[in-house]
Amino acid sequence: MALAVEIKESTVLVILGASGDLAKKKLFPGLFGLEKRCLLPDDLKIVGFAPDEMSYENFIDIIRKPIKLESPRFAEQLKQFCERCSYVSGHEGGDKAFEALKKRLDELLKGRKERNHLFYMALPPSVFVPMSEMLKKHCYSERGNSRIIIEKPFGHDLESSRDLQKHLEPNWREDEIFRVDHYLGKEVVNNLLVLRFGNEIFGSIWNSRHIESIQISIIEGGGAEGRGSYFNSTGVIRDVMQNHMTQILALLTMERPKSFSSDDLCDQKARLLEWIEPIEHDETIIGQYSKSEDGEKPAFKDEEDVPDDSKCATFCAAIAHIGNERWNGVPFFLKAGKALNESKTEIIVQFKQSTNVNIFNDLLPNKLTINVQPNEGVYLQINSFVPSLETKTEAINLDLTYRGREIPEAYEALLLDAMKGDYSRSVREDELDASWRIFTPLLHFLDGEESVEPRKYAYGSTGPEGLDEFISSYQQKR
Amino acid sequence: MALAVEIKESTVLVILGASGDLAKKKLFPGLFGLEKRCLLPDDLKIVGFAPDEMSYENFIDIIRKPIKLESPRFAEQLKQFCERCSYVSGHEGGDKAFEALKKRLDELLKGRKERNHLFYMALPPSVFVPMSEMLKKHCYSERGNSRIIIEKPFGHDLESSRDLQKHLEPNWREDEIFRVDHYLGKEVVNNLLVLRFGNEIFGSIWNSRHIESIQISIIEGGGAEGRGSYFNSTGVIRDVMQNHMTQILALLTMERPKSFSSDDLCDQKARLLEWIEPIEHDETIIGQYSKSEDGEKPAFKDEEDVPDDSKCATFCAAIAHIGNERWNGVPFFLKAGKALNESKTEIIVQFKQSTNVNIFNDLLPNKLTINVQPNEGVYLQINSFVPSLETKTEAINLDLTYRGREIPEAYEALLLDAMKGDYSRSVREDELDASWRIFTPLLHFLDGEESVEPRKYAYGSTGPEGLDEFISSYQQKR
Repeated sequence: MALAVEIKESTVLVILGASGDLAKKKLFPGLFGLEKRCLLPDDLKIVGFAPDEMSYENFIDIIRKPIKLESPRFAEQLKQFCERCSYVSGHEGGDKAFEALKKRLDELLKGRKERNHLFYMALPPSVFVPMSEMLKKHCYSERGNSRIIIEKPFGHDLESSRDLQKHLEPNWREDEIFRVDHYLGKEVVNNLLVLRFGNEIFGSIWNSRHIESIQISIIEGGGAEGRGSYFNSTGVIRDVMQNHMTQILALLTMERPKSFSSDDLCDQKARLLEWIEPIEHDETIIGQYSKSEDGEKPAFKDEEDVPDDSKCATFCAAIAHIGNERWNGVPFFLKAGKALNESKTEIIVQFKQSTNVNIFNDLLPNKLTINVQPNEGVYLQINSFVPSLETKTEAINLDLTYRGREIPEAYEALLLDAMKGDYSRSVREDELDASWRIFTPLLHFLDGEESVEPRKYAYGSTGPEGLDEFISSYQQKR
Repeated sequence: MALAVEIKESTVLVILGASGDLAKKKLFPGLFGLEKRCLLPDDLKIVGFAPDEMSYENFIDIIRKPIKLESPRFAEQLKQFCERCSYVSGHEGGDKAFEALKKRLDELLKGRKERNHLFYMALPPSVFVPMSEMLKKHCYSERGNSRIIIEKPFGHDLESSRDLQKHLEPNWREDEIFRVDHYLGKEVVNNLLVLRFGNEIFGSIWNSRHIESIQISIIEGGGAEGRGSYFNSTGVIRDVMQNHMTQILALLTMERPKSFSSDDLCDQKARLLEWIEPIEHDETIIGQYSKSEDGEKPAFKDEEDVPDDSKCATFCAAIAHIGNERWNGVPFFLKAGKALNESKTEIIVQFKQSTNVNIFNDLLPNKLTINVQPNEGVYLQINSFVPSLETKTEAINLDLTYRGREIPEAYEALLLDAMKGDYSRSVREDELDASWRIFTPLLHFLDGEESVEPRKYAYGSTGPEGLDEFISSYQQKR
């Protein structure tokens, strides 16, 4: 993040799964976004790779389709972008498919002293291992960097995650694996570090003495429509809590890194995660959505391929504890769910009530609200004097971010990092391991024979009953 | 300030010096402001008292003249206000004058069980003592409260201030003397208390560990035009530093009061002032303005009745030190002057640079700016992330106050306090004593034979040369 690393010359970026949704909706638009910002070096080549048989023209249609040109001056850049791109079909399968890919890489980098190969695996996780073996066997660069870029899920529990890692390791060193968590590419998540470590007024009170609690919510208004089978085997904890939410929690609570180099940053995140106790089932509320109150929206169990006795968690509220000196005693309220009353990712840092408040009436504690999405913003609630002849105070909200600025897409930031080889926003293996350690006992309990029935909540509601009591009981226990 | 005290029934407020500038420009408009807000009880009566022979109609003209009716609905209120008011001429002088005043008080409060007499001395300080003696002799209420309200100057050094106090004491108890410092009626000055004691995020970092320095400036664009003789015998230190600036400094730095009752509040201010060392001459820059660079504005010595060898300080920058645990080591830069490049009263709280800032470029330390006048406002400068794909930060300014609100005049607040008997914004005798103790050695040095020539600065400039070096030398000494 802080390193001024450039994308190396003589680089080819291969998108494996180039005809899939992730490539179409996020990766090609993200790469074109970087083209528009003139951040791609002239000689960078992009290769789409997929089993489909497809002409260059058809492939270019895929790239062009989601792109809206806000200005005519981008037309020239789109032309230039399409000229970088080519397609290789892997329809022959097996070694032959990868030999074809190798041939294209050789053509594109012919005569170059150094050859840098980057492979973005926009693929189902089940093929990560065989694909990474084939890439190593046929497409590894002997004279330059090779790197694989992968996205969640990295396993479905601690053991399977370690297993995946064990199978990648013989072929790919840790510094050749870029694990994407797209929340780490979001602007307001990066702003956390500036707020915490660049401002004495926040940095010095960022601890249990001054903070009452922290809440992180990742909630969605939509359900699992059309993805019932996938979601039933995943659940909300694996879907967003073990990865995105845990990364946000780590950035919010880690100690100050010595620098923003990837090593220093990931060291601090990993150290913090080691302090988090595994989440206990009796410190959670597990829910599954039923039909909406008006009956129009389906229950989770109405989805195709979801069995009638599914205990899949589509909602989870949990308390996390961080036992270190900075955070001991502060409850972290984690909430994630589908089919709720709104869609948002939000962090609330609730400061303590200032001492001896009986000198004022109507004071609210200070509160820092970080809206990660959909409306990016950071707000600080403070108490101020109301101009009047009585002593009245009022809580006001300060906007800590510039409004109206164009905010780059998360994938733009992360694609750029991955191409540059800046690992500061990549998830390192030890972080991954630590985050699975936090959630695996809970996941095993929920998947097991002894598991309990999830609490029902109506599609479009605020979640299962008892949530407020659960949170307030925690606030009193302290 | 926090007490819900009402103005007592059966109260008469007497304005002594009712034909003078303070009464005309501030007191009657302030009282009418309270009328408009419906904060005056129906039976409150106001009596103007002055040596002039004047009809009721002439007196009412004085009251009406500065008043602009923003809305026709205030016309009725103005009528009502004028009906409260009457005039007593003291042209006969001596006992007779006060007998006439007593007669009016008796008429207005005829038949009342309780009689409350308030006397606002809008008079030169030289007559405070004889007037207060006459008021005690003739107009003291035997059945209710009597109170005198006085404004600076309270003496010209520690000894003369104590002397004034000694002469008031036989007649008026401390709880019968309301000492007005109109800065204490200003909204943003009151907001200091809410910001400091109502917000954990400020309260917890309000000390030498997190604050680098504090600057208080009371500067004016105008010179001493037409008031040369008065100002020559006063100087800027007596004019604004010993009183207004010292009160602001006390509110900024005092410990948390147990409540906002006047006793608790004044206790804390007085305790804080005891910790301030007397200002040393070698920790000051003393200046006197000369002609403006274009020659159009006069030098201080060009004013009538200012002698050619005047050493009067029209500018003073000084360093104050507070030796207590909270503030030890923090320099307080005090700056006051006339004939400068702008008019403003401003407080700047400069926080320390956050530690180990080498992880970011271009960070500015956090800064809280409090504009007391002319444009009331409170601003916090923080560092935030600039939405971009590079790591850029930017300092942004947050507005901590509501804009566009109508802010009551300082005199409205203080007149209301004085009438209610709420002493929390009155200057208590021990505060007054402590503030003179801080400045008297410097004043005696400047008035004495050994005094030095003030540094010259041009009318309309930023002050004497060497000011920046003086301040930065202090920042380095720490």
